[in-house]
Amino acid sequence: MVDRLDAAGRAALAQDLPGWAMVEGRDAIRRGFRFADFNQAWGFMSRVALLAEKQDHHPEWSNVWNRVEITLSTHDAGGLSTRDVALAKAIDGLLR
Amino acid sequence: MVDRLDAAGRAALAQDLPGWAMVEGRDAIRRGFRFADFNQAWGFMSRVALLAEKQDHHPEWSNVWNRVEITLSTHDAGGLSTRDVALAKAIDGLLR
Repeated sequence: MVDRLDAAGRAALAQDLPGWAMVEGRDAIRRGFRFADFNQAWGFMSRVALLAEKQDHHPEWSNVWNRVEITLSTHDAGGLSTRDVALAKAIDGLLR
Repeated sequence: MVDRLDAAGRAALAQDLPGWAMVEGRDAIRRGFRFADFNQAWGFMSRVALLAEKQDHHPEWSNVWNRVEITLSTHDAGGLSTRDVALAKAIDGLLR
């Protein structure tokens, strides 16, 4: 069982994950990414897939050619948890 | 420019692509896939990505852990074209 993100964790979201936004009507965060083409988008997704598998925490995501949308929430917690923050930070790290 | 699928092509869809359904309110087809886990789902997606890049025709798709949803439509045709049928058949071929 995973605990939902506490108040301090939530307060830190805007500063720690400025590219991510809360999903309307859900305790989840979301970020959109745009690349030069499908090759670049898929390369990014492949790196995210490896991160997700290593962290044993997987995104809800979609892709249309050069665009990728990633939503993170923790099923076992019924909402956001530290797992989502960790995965979001790792994903952001790919872009640096 | 790509032509939209003609009447004969549309009549053949149900028989040629029985796993696919028309998308409500759009000239597009859709199929859902379910796998044992993320590893299997991602393996499938990787094979679809290579097919798509080779055919230079890309899906709209989403993944949540072991589930993959693929929607096919041709932007340049403003709806279904023979490209979608070809990609759908190739995707189905991966599952045989």
